Amino acid sequence: MPRRYMVMQGPLFGTIEAGGTKFVCALGRDPHEMRRCSRIPTTTPEETLGRAVKFFRDAERDIGQCAAYGIACFGPAAVDPSSPQWGSILATPKPGWSNVNVAGAIAEAFGKPVGFDTDVNGAALAEFRWGAAQGADAVVYITVGTGLGAGFVIDGRPLHGARHPEVGHILPRKHPKDLTFPGVCPFHGDCFEGVACGLAIAKRWGKPLSELPQDHEAHAIIGWYLGQLASALTATYSPRKIIFGGGVMKTPGLLDGIRKSAVALTRGYFADDETLMASIEAPGLGDNSGLAGGLALAEHAWLLAGK
Amino acid sequence: MPRRYMVMQGPLFGTIEAGGTKFVCALGRDPHEMRRCSRIPTTTPEETLGRAVKFFRDAERDIGQCAAYGIACFGPAAVDPSSPQWGSILATPKPGWSNVNVAGAIAEAFGKPVGFDTDVNGAALAEFRWGAAQGADAVVYITVGTGLGAGFVIDGRPLHGARHPEVGHILPRKHPKDLTFPGVCPFHGDCFEGVACGLAIAKRWGKPLSELPQDHEAHAIIGWYLGQLASALTATYSPRKIIFGGGVMKTPGLLDGIRKSAVALTRGYFADDETLMASIEAPGLGDNSGLAGGLALAEHAWLLAGK
Repeated sequence: MPRRYMVMQGPLFGTIEAGGTKFVCALGRDPHEMRRCSRIPTTTPEETLGRAVKFFRDAERDIGQCAAYGIACFGPAAVDPSSPQWGSILATPKPGWSNVNVAGAIAEAFGKPVGFDTDVNGAALAEFRWGAAQGADAVVYITVGTGLGAGFVIDGRPLHGARHPEVGHILPRKHPKDLTFPGVCPFHGDCFEGVACGLAIAKRWGKPLSELPQDHEAHAIIGWYLGQLASALTATYSPRKIIFGGGVMKTPGLLDGIRKSAVALTRGYFADDETLMASIEAPGLGDNSGLAGGLALAEHAWLLAGK
Repeated sequence: MPRRYMVMQGPLFGTIEAGGTKFVCALGRDPHEMRRCSRIPTTTPEETLGRAVKFFRDAERDIGQCAAYGIACFGPAAVDPSSPQWGSILATPKPGWSNVNVAGAIAEAFGKPVGFDTDVNGAALAEFRWGAAQGADAVVYITVGTGLGAGFVIDGRPLHGARHPEVGHILPRKHPKDLTFPGVCPFHGDCFEGVACGLAIAKRWGKPLSELPQDHEAHAIIGWYLGQLASALTATYSPRKIIFGGGVMKTPGLLDGIRKSAVALTRGYFADDETLMASIEAPGLGDNSGLAGGLALAEHAWLLAGK
């Protein structure tokens, strides 16, 4: 059936999920058809970016030219397109990476449009484009891993504001059984990240949440904090979807605990309980939200460039 | 100098600041040139809306036809233009006003475009259009009066999401000297509105904040809560401007207290201290943000309708 080959194909894009531990690079047309994925350790900017450029050069020779590139980057990052720093990582504890222009390095190497945003904004955009939040006019993507952060897509566009959101650093109401833990955030101690991220869980209870017995109070406490965060973000953004991703979310039962806490804390004020519960979801793209984020950012940059 | 009369004039708009106590109606081309302002008590929908329609009919006979109308309305309100309920007040404790279609009544009477949004979204849009937040890509307008709420304008457009934001109902961290007050919110007790609105101040200390001596702890406590709210909204929206309006904000020194608390709570994480302090401001339109909000919504509706 040779006609199969005549199906219209979208352009090929390059994606980088740029993390503090590794840069994951791939080529693809959509998140369900990713090609030639490679994990490059985050060492020095020269080495890591040099290897990323080489990866794309080699892959393009075999697979085809990319129309644009997208980078879903660890933060803080300069995401305002009108800023001269655009595309750079800002002051970071990661040695050597402060003020490194990641997007600039890729743009210079390939001369193609480059999309650049935070990893969480990229993930939110990918979930809006292909995942659990398709068509939703207000989307929140929360990641709960080593740290805790969130990205936002309003009417199909990533939200930046003056810098970019950092919801991990809001102060939560403390859980009644968690009043003495000082938190792990070097800036704020017991902000949401300081009490509910993977690091905070390990520090308090010595293990990842998924390895603690189901009747351990940690499950109720972490579910309550994340439900409180979902409730606070419902009060601020009135989102149609709040997607919870990241390593800690692999814990069985946690998503349901978050839903129940959010309902208990909002008391029907923002939406009926069923609507609120249904708005809180796991990523439609599973573990691929980050890499798909780079792809969505590449597509966005390509569209903006008028192709 | 007869040439003065040839200056191009924008169209005339009708504005309604629709509150639970009164509907303020006026005509104008911009907030600095408002005509024929009238205060109509909020009694029954029939009477209040009937008087509003009569006001505009009479005023238009004398001043000229309005090109569009805008309503900055008390909430909860159906602000999603794609909803069949659009233009209505939702379930409200105000007797007789639940499910009343305010925008529909005005549209039916005059057959012109009608803009409709929450009072706080209207105020945020007016501050973006003519006030202290001109040109800012992310604007928050917080009102601290009998209640506490906020409106948002992102890239020049009011934010709605699934319903509309209700930031008064986020749970704050409690002030160490305010641990026992249960709050006044019938839904959540000690949410931000429950501890920091005018009603909560009167309940705790028996007087408005502005009438309590400057060394009364109430000033520090309320400034701290509102600084915490500014800090939480900075973490979520990364706004260029956070405008604080409403009756409680008339208290001398309160805005400075909020700025200092926001700086103390964020600890330089989102922006340097000066940038953060400068982002927190009084309304550029003074007490006219609400009425100017209706005007901005009318202009918005007129532009959307393509003149």
